[in-house]
Amino acid sequence: MAYEFKARRRVEFSETDMAGIVHFSNFFRYMETAEQGLFRSLGFSIVPKPGDPRAGWPRVHATCDYHRPLRFDDLVEIHIIVVEKRSKSLRYQFRFSKVTDAATEEVARGELTVVCVTHTPEGTMKAANIPPEITDKIEAAPAGVLGD
Amino acid sequence: MAYEFKARRRVEFSETDMAGIVHFSNFFRYMETAEQGLFRSLGFSIVPKPGDPRAGWPRVHATCDYHRPLRFDDLVEIHIIVVEKRSKSLRYQFRFSKVTDAATEEVARGELTVVCVTHTPEGTMKAANIPPEITDKIEAAPAGVLGD
Amino acid sequence: MAYEFKARRRVEFSETDMAGIVHFSNFFRYMETAEQGLFRSLGFSIVPKPGDPRAGWPRVHATCDYHRPLRFDDLVEIHIIVVEKRSKSLRYQFRFSKVTDAATEEVARGELTVVCVTHTPEGTMKAANIPPEITDKIEAAPAGVLGD
Amino acid sequence: MAYEFKARRRVEFSETDMAGIVHFSNFFRYMETAEQGLFRSLGFSIVPKPGDPRAGWPRVHATCDYHRPLRFDDLVEIHIIVVEKRSKSLRYQFRFSKVTDAATEEVARGELTVVCVTHTPEGTMKAANIPPEITDKIEAAPAGVLGD
Repeated sequence: MAYEFKARRRVEFSETDMAGIVHFSNFFRYMETAEQGLFRSLGFSIVPKPGDPRAGWPRVHATCDYHRPLRFDDLVEIHIIVVEKRSKSLRYQFRFSKVTDAATEEVARGELTVVCVTHTPEGTMKAANIPPEITDKIEAAPAGVLGD
Repeated sequence: MAYEFKARRRVEFSETDMAGIVHFSNFFRYMETAEQGLFRSLGFSIVPKPGDPRAGWPRVHATCDYHRPLRFDDLVEIHIIVVEKRSKSLRYQFRFSKVTDAATEEVARGELTVVCVTHTPEGTMKAANIPPEITDKIEAAPAGVLGD
Repeated sequence: MAYEFKARRRVEFSETDMAGIVHFSNFFRYMETAEQGLFRSLGFSIVPKPGDPRAGWPRVHATCDYHRPLRFDDLVEIHIIVVEKRSKSLRYQFRFSKVTDAATEEVARGELTVVCVTHTPEGTMKAANIPPEITDKIEAAPAGVLGD
Repeated sequence: MAYEFKARRRVEFSETDMAGIVHFSNFFRYMETAEQGLFRSLGFSIVPKPGDPRAGWPRVHATCDYHRPLRFDDLVEIHIIVVEKRSKSLRYQFRFSKVTDAATEEVARGELTVVCVTHTPEGTMKAANIPPEITDKIEAAPAGVLGD
């Protein structure tokens, strides 16, 4: 059972904007880097491979608060924490930190709510229970982890 | 005095993802299309031109709720509404709609809070009062506009 | 029969980089804006709709030469010209211009070669003849158009 | 003296498009991942830090040939090779490979030409000699390296 994962990534030039900092929309892309890292660490993928339980994960809610900017070539740690596990959805918290030799400083914090769906034969999506293979391995963080 | 603007835009191929829909992070980029449309309609720009009041607008809070997907080549209307005007910040609401000949259907709704800053000689940013040239032209939407 | 199309688009904030100009990779995205504009003007789409001839168009070659930068909020014209039409592929030229009240100035020029494919039942792609419905409407530019 | 560098990177979800593969424009962004990796390995950065030789590197030519698609979560190796070193410009070749336990398979190959510039007091860019601190550490690949 896992409820968190820490991914690391360098800020790339194409992720900056003319204000000289990472464009705020890219933090939402970084969220998925950590989410897939969590899934991969458990032997799964956000995108089912042949043989995996069939499931899609559309995002229904996304939010982020920005405290300090990230800049080109910064080393970023994206800490994903499962905040809530329901039968058909997961809610994650993300803590973004800039990592230097001296310190790890939080620069932003966000959330993402994703819903598990299956695809009907007509091609539309329908909310579905999270497959047991996944729900057996992911749990919500225990009280205390989110305290700070 | 203005408190809203409607921008239109086609979904481009590069904005879709392998789920066949617009990647959720791109809604935050669409927000800026409407924000700049509002500013341009008032004779300003998010990025000051020579002679404009010197101001930068870092984003401090962003959120979006997704109701229905947008797909390639969809015509999207992005409706920006100024929800709150404070001395140093603005808060916007965004209503995303898919426009067809038959109807305009809301697909997502979000918010953005931006803070007005000036750049100090040392190169750091400092919160500042919104220049009067801008604050004279932008107002918060009157009660009732946000009622639905 | 058509061999060209001109699309227009504003540079968005998220398309700039920390050098203060449009990131060079975005010119390749702008190419598709004009390509889809050409297809749409003929009643088709790069992505087949139900009832359209089934075809995918993977890109096999892309190139661009950059003469001058594009900046935030610039109005860009993307001029696509069909340079070559073969049984299974199309080759386009793109001329990027910055449009102001005073002038239209070319800032970059590129090319894209796309191959028509169908999807096999096994899920792989296979080069295929361009459907007659499309090949009947698109032609290579006559000699002279590419002279400058 | 160095003339090459190999960077590795996972394909992220936001880099795919509705065709289910990495959007072709993203290969140009991956090029910069390897370019910065090369510079960082030599103690420099594409973006000068305080104290570094002052230089900007606008891209003047970019090209890529695509042989096979990259997909979500693929591990990509980006091999940059300095093909040509002139007084004011560098030309790189890039070889993109998909890395699996079993094999490293080339999927695309491209080139980038970058020009060294300084910024004039008026804010425009001017081609300049590559600073000796950089030119002393980067050389063109010897004959033979580009033979295959």
